[in-house]
Amino acid sequence: MALVVQKFGGTSVGSIDRIRNVARRALATQRAGNRVVLIVSAMSGETNRLLGLAHAICEIPDAREMDALASTGEQVSAALTAIAIQAEGGKACSLLGHQVKIFTDDAFTKARIKTIEGSRIFSILARGEIVVVAGFQGVDVSGNITTLGRGGSDTSAVAVAAAIGADECEIFTDVDGVYTTDPNVCPSAHKIHRISYEEMLELASLGAKVLQIRSVEIAMKYGVRVHVRSSFNETSGTIVTKEESALEGGAVTGVAYDKGEARVHVVGVENRPGIAAELFEKIAEKHISVDMIVQNVATDANARAAITFTIAKTDLVRARPWIDSIAKGLGAREVRYDEDVAKVSIVGSGMRSHAGIAAKMFRLLANEGINIDAISTSEIKVSCLVGAKYTELAVRALHDGFGLGAEQ
Amino acid sequence: MALVVQKFGGTSVGSIDRIRNVARRALATQRAGNRVVLIVSAMSGETNRLLGLAHAICEIPDAREMDALASTGEQVSAALTAIAIQAEGGKACSLLGHQVKIFTDDAFTKARIKTIEGSRIFSILARGEIVVVAGFQGVDVSGNITTLGRGGSDTSAVAVAAAIGADECEIFTDVDGVYTTDPNVCPSAHKIHRISYEEMLELASLGAKVLQIRSVEIAMKYGVRVHVRSSFNETSGTIVTKEESALEGGAVTGVAYDKGEARVHVVGVENRPGIAAELFEKIAEKHISVDMIVQNVATDANARAAITFTIAKTDLVRARPWIDSIAKGLGAREVRYDEDVAKVSIVGSGMRSHAGIAAKMFRLLANEGINIDAISTSEIKVSCLVGAKYTELAVRALHDGFGLGAEQ
Repeated sequence: MALVVQKFGGTSVGSIDRIRNVARRALATQRAGNRVVLIVSAMSGETNRLLGLAHAICEIPDAREMDALASTGEQVSAALTAIAIQAEGGKACSLLGHQVKIFTDDAFTKARIKTIEGSRIFSILARGEIVVVAGFQGVDVSGNITTLGRGGSDTSAVAVAAAIGADECEIFTDVDGVYTTDPNVCPSAHKIHRISYEEMLELASLGAKVLQIRSVEIAMKYGVRVHVRSSFNETSGTIVTKEESALEGGAVTGVAYDKGEARVHVVGVENRPGIAAELFEKIAEKHISVDMIVQNVATDANARAAITFTIAKTDLVRARPWIDSIAKGLGAREVRYDEDVAKVSIVGSGMRSHAGIAAKMFRLLANEGINIDAISTSEIKVSCLVGAKYTELAVRALHDGFGLGAEQ
Repeated sequence: MALVVQKFGGTSVGSIDRIRNVARRALATQRAGNRVVLIVSAMSGETNRLLGLAHAICEIPDAREMDALASTGEQVSAALTAIAIQAEGGKACSLLGHQVKIFTDDAFTKARIKTIEGSRIFSILARGEIVVVAGFQGVDVSGNITTLGRGGSDTSAVAVAAAIGADECEIFTDVDGVYTTDPNVCPSAHKIHRISYEEMLELASLGAKVLQIRSVEIAMKYGVRVHVRSSFNETSGTIVTKEESALEGGAVTGVAYDKGEARVHVVGVENRPGIAAELFEKIAEKHISVDMIVQNVATDANARAAITFTIAKTDLVRARPWIDSIAKGLGAREVRYDEDVAKVSIVGSGMRSHAGIAAKMFRLLANEGINIDAISTSEIKVSCLVGAKYTELAVRALHDGFGLGAEQ
């Protein structure tokens, strides 16, 4: 008897009919001889509706209250899913973050899971019931409700799967797997059958939007086998495991893009050791995540340096006054902000063994007349910041240029 | 420095603008030198929207899941109210039932409060903040979310006021106090300035809809001074206290009506001692509340008796199969159900010292040609069950017949 965690995203529980579908699917899995734990997101549109209410009151609402507010979305869909399972003749019980005891830190709106207790889940499973856990939410040590940030239900699912030792964590979504790139942008994109945690990590973090980055980190750390698949059909999706896809194909596994970041350009900071550390430590204190970082080397000891980095656009309003004052404190001459950028990345475990991949990427972009604003690289990815209007053109050029256009 | 509990109902928090109004009102109370605890209901329409979702899945959804679902309504308005107070420059913190530790029994959808801890409320007040408590909800000993039934936010408010020893519990609503009867039915109805707990209890239980009956019971038990008033103006409303209004006026203080009950007529039960006890014990086991009970005395030892009682129409679907089987088990010949009834009542502490009040009521109804289906009386009220279509006519006849038409 396998222990299976199934996570259904907002679109999959987006209406009463779809919730019924989730219930039937979970019951079918149970009847096939498995113990089933569901993790559900808020019904699609609901989180935005709730946040919209708060933003109608003030621009930057208190984070603790935002979490109390936003967590209701998953509470509603968890209860409705349990009711739907009962209506289909099954037995089910919903659990909220504080009922499972999903303990997190108190970084409201982007809390991180510390521990998950499995005892209540197991006692409900022992009664032959399906457990429906509200995704996205946890509780801090003081009993305050926290949320895990956008896409946090994936994190809930994989973390619960790790905590209870599930055999597989199925992530049901509105796409049927992980694609070589966004099919809406590039018609020749196709489904990847197997992908390594590392590749998935880079794809997820770069905006592939299929699986939340932290959930992949947790899956990798605890060896949780993740199966990303469609909630609307029975087709097998993409398996994320330890194996490397590099054995299967070329150097590049996928092309990702992200329009969700804004570029911050800090001009004329002092050129002394530790200045970058000071800047990013202070930004981190405010729980602002920084992605790409590029520092221009000053030409001589008296010259001033420039630091470019990107942060989430959603953090920009909140972060801007802090960054301005931090930069001023460090003697910066000016801070420029640019929201009109996009990050385009190529990802692949095979890059390690192939030379010249980055150079080929720059050439492919140059061939299309696309200027590169910043570059950052890791062992298995290369990212370029380009003007937002070039996003689709860049993705198509890279996807087909690296031979991803035909199913491998 | 007084400690004030202010409860705002669904209409009072029915929109962002109204929530802002609540925030300003609470802040004004705080700035006048008071410590303030708010209790908020769900935004108007929200509870029905949530229950509608569940009922779209199945007719009789699981009660535990219904509570997890419905309690989100108050969670949303509590968070939004705290945000609104912050937006107005104040400090506030929302608390849910399980965070306050409002412990209830586990009678889901109609739980009763057992204990309330004041410590977290006091620690937030000590920081100079306004506490915003989500009404209507509590938690059982196992951490399951419970709700207190319709109008339960009034109960939350008065119970919290009692638990923390508040000086006054203000119930803000969309009417400006308790009226001698429903002004929509009877244009000569007017506001009652002071009313005793006992009178309010009868008026509330009989459907005056201003204040939930259990909240009045708790207020009476703990001597909480309750002030029912409008959230849309500054006018003083109705004070509910220990004093008796009988000193002020006539025998009858108000006329109430209730269309929310259905009549159950159990025909041909055995005429032996204990049959009524058995019937109502079994109904109580199912958490069905029974209101009026009338038993026809059988004419001789072999004759069969008939028992008439009323239950909430909202319980009818759920209760009907049980009542049928319980009645069958007691040898009843037939059970008839009638939803087309209304209960009309006169209430007043002054009745105790006035003879002939009931007789006058029956005469006033007879004068209008209204037939009485059942009668029940207490020390300070007389209720008659009449055909639903006569409700308004009966109310007007009684209100003016007992001299309530002119402000006293």
